[in-house]
Amino acid sequence: MKRVWLTMVAAALLLPAGAMAADPAAALAEVRAFREAHAAEIVAELVEWLSLPNVATNVEDIERNAEMLKAMMERRGIRTEILPTGGGRPVVYGELAAPGATTTLLIYGHYDGQSVDPGQWHSQPFEPVLRRGVAGEWTTIPFPGASGKFEDDWRIFARSASDDKSPMVALLAALDALRAAGREPRVNLKFFFEGEEEQGSPHLEEFIEREKERLAADLIITADGPVHQSGRPTIFFGNRGIMALEITVYGPTENLHSGHYGNWAPNPAMRLAQLLATMKDAGGRVTVAGFYDDAVPLTEEEKKAIAAIPPVEARVQERFGIAEPEGGGRRLEEMIALPSLNVRGLRSGYVGAEATTIIPRTATAAIDVRLVKGNDHQRMFEKIAAHIRRQGWTVLDREPTAEERRQHGRLVKVEKLDGYNAVRTPLGLPMAAALARAVERATGGAVVRLPTLGGSGPLHYFDALGLPSVGVPIVNYDNNQHGPDENLRLGNFFQGIDIFASMFLWE
Amino acid sequence: MKRVWLTMVAAALLLPAGAMAADPAAALAEVRAFREAHAAEIVAELVEWLSLPNVATNVEDIERNAEMLKAMMERRGIRTEILPTGGGRPVVYGELAAPGATTTLLIYGHYDGQSVDPGQWHSQPFEPVLRRGVAGEWTTIPFPGASGKFEDDWRIFARSASDDKSPMVALLAALDALRAAGREPRVNLKFFFEGEEEQGSPHLEEFIEREKERLAADLIITADGPVHQSGRPTIFFGNRGIMALEITVYGPTENLHSGHYGNWAPNPAMRLAQLLATMKDAGGRVTVAGFYDDAVPLTEEEKKAIAAIPPVEARVQERFGIAEPEGGGRRLEEMIALPSLNVRGLRSGYVGAEATTIIPRTATAAIDVRLVKGNDHQRMFEKIAAHIRRQGWTVLDREPTAEERRQHGRLVKVEKLDGYNAVRTPLGLPMAAALARAVERATGGAVVRLPTLGGSGPLHYFDALGLPSVGVPIVNYDNNQHGPDENLRLGNFFQGIDIFASMFLWE
Repeated sequence: MKRVWLTMVAAALLLPAGAMAADPAAALAEVRAFREAHAAEIVAELVEWLSLPNVATNVEDIERNAEMLKAMMERRGIRTEILPTGGGRPVVYGELAAPGATTTLLIYGHYDGQSVDPGQWHSQPFEPVLRRGVAGEWTTIPFPGASGKFEDDWRIFARSASDDKSPMVALLAALDALRAAGREPRVNLKFFFEGEEEQGSPHLEEFIEREKERLAADLIITADGPVHQSGRPTIFFGNRGIMALEITVYGPTENLHSGHYGNWAPNPAMRLAQLLATMKDAGGRVTVAGFYDDAVPLTEEEKKAIAAIPPVEARVQERFGIAEPEGGGRRLEEMIALPSLNVRGLRSGYVGAEATTIIPRTATAAIDVRLVKGNDHQRMFEKIAAHIRRQGWTVLDREPTAEERRQHGRLVKVEKLDGYNAVRTPLGLPMAAALARAVERATGGAVVRLPTLGGSGPLHYFDALGLPSVGVPIVNYDNNQHGPDENLRLGNFFQGIDIFASMFLWE
Repeated sequence: MKRVWLTMVAAALLLPAGAMAADPAAALAEVRAFREAHAAEIVAELVEWLSLPNVATNVEDIERNAEMLKAMMERRGIRTEILPTGGGRPVVYGELAAPGATTTLLIYGHYDGQSVDPGQWHSQPFEPVLRRGVAGEWTTIPFPGASGKFEDDWRIFARSASDDKSPMVALLAALDALRAAGREPRVNLKFFFEGEEEQGSPHLEEFIEREKERLAADLIITADGPVHQSGRPTIFFGNRGIMALEITVYGPTENLHSGHYGNWAPNPAMRLAQLLATMKDAGGRVTVAGFYDDAVPLTEEEKKAIAAIPPVEARVQERFGIAEPEGGGRRLEEMIALPSLNVRGLRSGYVGAEATTIIPRTATAAIDVRLVKGNDHQRMFEKIAAHIRRQGWTVLDREPTAEERRQHGRLVKVEKLDGYNAVRTPLGLPMAAALARAVERATGGAVVRLPTLGGSGPLHYFDALGLPSVGVPIVNYDNNQHGPDENLRLGNFFQGIDIFASMFLWE
């Protein structure tokens, strides 16, 4: 009985009426007016949440973030639960039914953040500040008062400002704005906000397998990642996978004086450099045997979609001071459709004021390998380990014993860290066309259709649901995601509210 | 008048008498008995001084060390002054005349220490502890009371325990012991204790030029460095020079997300690895053009001296877990007679728990180059810079501008830090024969005559004095000098007292 009554009410609500924006265009105009009038409150909610540290390795911080997110969702009438994953970093899950709707969107985001190195930031990572200016010449300004106006080019600097708290705040603000226009979502919404994405989602696969029925939907929407570098509204059809590893080369068992032993005791930093140098050629092509073999090539349709995107290489080169990109002139969008090998860190001995004249005991390289459709993270790891063995190294997956160090001249620990595979949804998916229309309606511009985002997302773990997935990113591309001075361009945030509101209308 | 009187008193003191050990052997027996009976006091003086932090970058600490050293010297009747160098890290200089003596020794040591990374130590670097055991299995034990006995294999762990406070304490204890045997030094002593050796002695050359007359002597004795790995008493005839440099490779102007840009934006860590890999071959030979050209080869006499030294390679390999030394089987002593290129540090992005998936902005390698006779530090730097240019890099000696980063694909900052040249005294020096006899008398064993120590010392700066120099090291070779857990084997310290006492007798 109740369900019938609800359906009737909903049907009534969908009729044109005085207090209700009748068509999507009118509704979206009201959404825009609402979020302009209430910008200070919307930004204040984001800033409050950003002030809560969320480095994923601190479980207590993560729990506090989950509680605040749950409260934010419940204020919007979303039926919300904190669901444990087994890892102490729960999923915040919420449902909002649209009476009569036949389509269900499962919206993915994550509320944990990458680790921070505060010494490298210009402000504290968990004390959000507002800045205006251009890259390298930012000026901190006070937040305007309740009635103040924000400019689109101003930015908020804080960890997770872009990755990935602001999309979640924009989703909730979109609900508020839509309701202010007298509308409710016309699709059922299931919100799935993860707490350990930056840790490689170690419990996600198991969790999804267990919660399969609850999570039933028609389409997964990823609310994560930046828009295309052209600044145009973007939807993406895949994420790269990722596999991280660490390589540690062993030198003498103690740091040795470089005067007494330099020239004779092998230097692990030099040997690590020599080993890394065998992995890429001067042009940046990975020389690990079979590295590119499993990658599924782009389809004709995907190639066409890339050709339709405005080229951004010159702009990105200018912005980040890149004189000669790798790839021999191929487009950025083509390059991210290939697997990549990136040295994300090097550590050995000391540099700068801390330098001491030693032969270091060890040298470590942290590497991430981005995977594309067709790659398997375990197989990719094996290829790299095999490459290292072919260079004459004895490969271990643990610290060597003293005896092993005495016996093997080239001894290396190669450790596989997290890893998951890539996902790529066919561009022709009908629901994606509906989504593209919704985005274009909100923004008035042609949407960029990216076959894959360069970034990784744990979408592979949603395989058990058998659902297609499409990404709807909103944040600026130059957001320093994962690094110091992460930031959010406010114009992107505000446009994101419009985009999500339009997506909720699904017309 | 006064001088004549003093000479007469001294002559009287040199006559055999009841309270006075008549011949050197008898005097040295009494020296040994004294330092055994007073071991606790001698060690306590060392421990007290080691408790004073002495990292050369902290000028106030250095001043406190200078004051304490001056007081220690004055307690022995050494006329001591603290002489400013212009750098805020003074020379502690003392004189002790031996009436009637025709030989003057200028004894060099340094009281500053290398920087410390306390997290890497097993105890606090400036809270000396006593340990017994073997490498990797040390047990901390309490210092024995006033009448307690120390065992030769026990060690004191602290920064500068070996490099270079203990030799100075041993010199002073040798004076005490000699006097207890009723003897005084038979050579004039000038003590020259530097406060910025670990900083590359930036003011030393100028200081010595200015103080030339005061420093007039017959022989420079370096009381620094470890004994030969065989454990045998050692004198050395030279020090390697040193030249330090830092190489910084530039990536994007901001850390970039490795997913969105990995494969396309060049990675400075990988490029640094590729550049370093061009500098040495797989066998460890430096491949920088002309690197070995200026090195003066060992003379036949030096080669013979090396051949007479017991080989230590197997022992050192076992001790430090080295399976395959560089140099294709050549002796360690031959290898340190060649210049060396050592990567003492690597830094880029983050590793371990701090790793974030970025393309780092920069990658830095800290390098030290040990120089031998014939090398010039500036010329050596030019050779390395020329090598880097030949690999296709644009070499700067400062940070690049944004515009330079946009224009030059391979942009590197190559910065020369400190540098000084090597010194090598001919093995045939007559005074060295007297010194070798003194060392052998104190220890009862054949002395190792090393053509050069592997370590650097700023002896080059003493060139203005036109004096030969010979090193008399006392500390154990496996002392973790410059690294964490620096330590001093007490047996070496005690033997050092005997050696210096014998040197003072100069018979």
